[in-house]
Amino acid sequence: MNETNQHAQHTLHALKKIEIIVKGKREMFVQDLLEESGVSGYTIHRNVAGRGESGFHEGYLLFNDDASLVMFFAVSDESKIQSIIDGLTPLFEKSSGVMFVSDTQVVRLNKFLADDE
Amino acid sequence: MNETNQHAQHTLHALKKIEIIVKGKREMFVQDLLEESGVSGYTIHRNVAGRGESGFHEGYLLFNDDASLVMFFAVSDESKIQSIIDGLTPLFEKSSGVMFVSDTQVVRLNKFLADDE
Amino acid sequence: MNETNQHAQHTLHALKKIEIIVKGKREMFVQDLLEESGVSGYTIHRNVAGRGESGFHEGYLLFNDDASLVMFFAVSDESKIQSIIDGLTPLFEKSSGVMFVSDTQVVRLNKFLADDE
Repeated sequence: MNETNQHAQHTLHALKKIEIIVKGKREMFVQDLLEESGVSGYTIHRNVAGRGESGFHEGYLLFNDDASLVMFFAVSDESKIQSIIDGLTPLFEKSSGVMFVSDTQVVRLNKFLADDE
Repeated sequence: MNETNQHAQHTLHALKKIEIIVKGKREMFVQDLLEESGVSGYTIHRNVAGRGESGFHEGYLLFNDDASLVMFFAVSDESKIQSIIDGLTPLFEKSSGVMFVSDTQVVRLNKFLADDE
Repeated sequence: MNETNQHAQHTLHALKKIEIIVKGKREMFVQDLLEESGVSGYTIHRNVAGRGESGFHEGYLLFNDDASLVMFFAVSDESKIQSIIDGLTPLFEKSSGVMFVSDTQVVRLNKFLADDE
């Protein structure tokens, strides 16, 4: 019944939010990776300042100077996370960068769900 | 007893974090909506780049070009979420945009809680 | 066995994400606080717009004008959160500001964990 009013209802659906911070010159690498991984949308915040250390004791790589960075905000279903991690591995091994994954919910039109599911 | 020292204690309280991404020209629409919905504070990140598709298979609307976007970060209690979703519905139906809702905690002064609760 | 291939595996580890929003002139105060608290990395988004009120009924302090703000994104283990809250208390009592704490996961190289744990 609800489908008769195709535009009426937006509800929240669980997804993962991905935040990736890399040096500015790596922006295209991350864009290409997200698109190859099937991530459907993201924003890019450029000229972000950042600070950190290559933290042996912390166990993850961050930035050791006040470099100009880009920060990506993307949403994805969980199935794509591992391929993004794998794609970032060579970058994180030779350069600085960090990736966060968090739970979020996104507003979604039910009419699309009715077609897809 | 604690209330006698009005400034001493900050603790964390659960709220929802709202992130809204729209085309730059929709900034005022979202500002007005947040304020009408009673959202007490937010930040606006302007001139953010974004990419995405109007994803029929994904089921939500994103940006189909490298448009200049604005990204809002707001906090709200859960009761206001639905009215924000409802307010964004006409915008998301005729234009691009996306809204995320996540759990967060905010640092809050206990002295205010003592007055309110 | 896994340690023989030091670069092969990145996995996700739970941490806290901290977001702090303050007036631009407080940027150095927050930077110093994060570093003294042992927070190993963060990004700074400058010239963010913000709006809000000193919300007596809301119970937390926000911005009462369209000031130029800075927004910090940091990750930390939970043990450092309280010292950051305590360090921000004098700032939040005399000026505007807000701090959010959320659950997140960070991509971490297992080879470092093998050394640390």
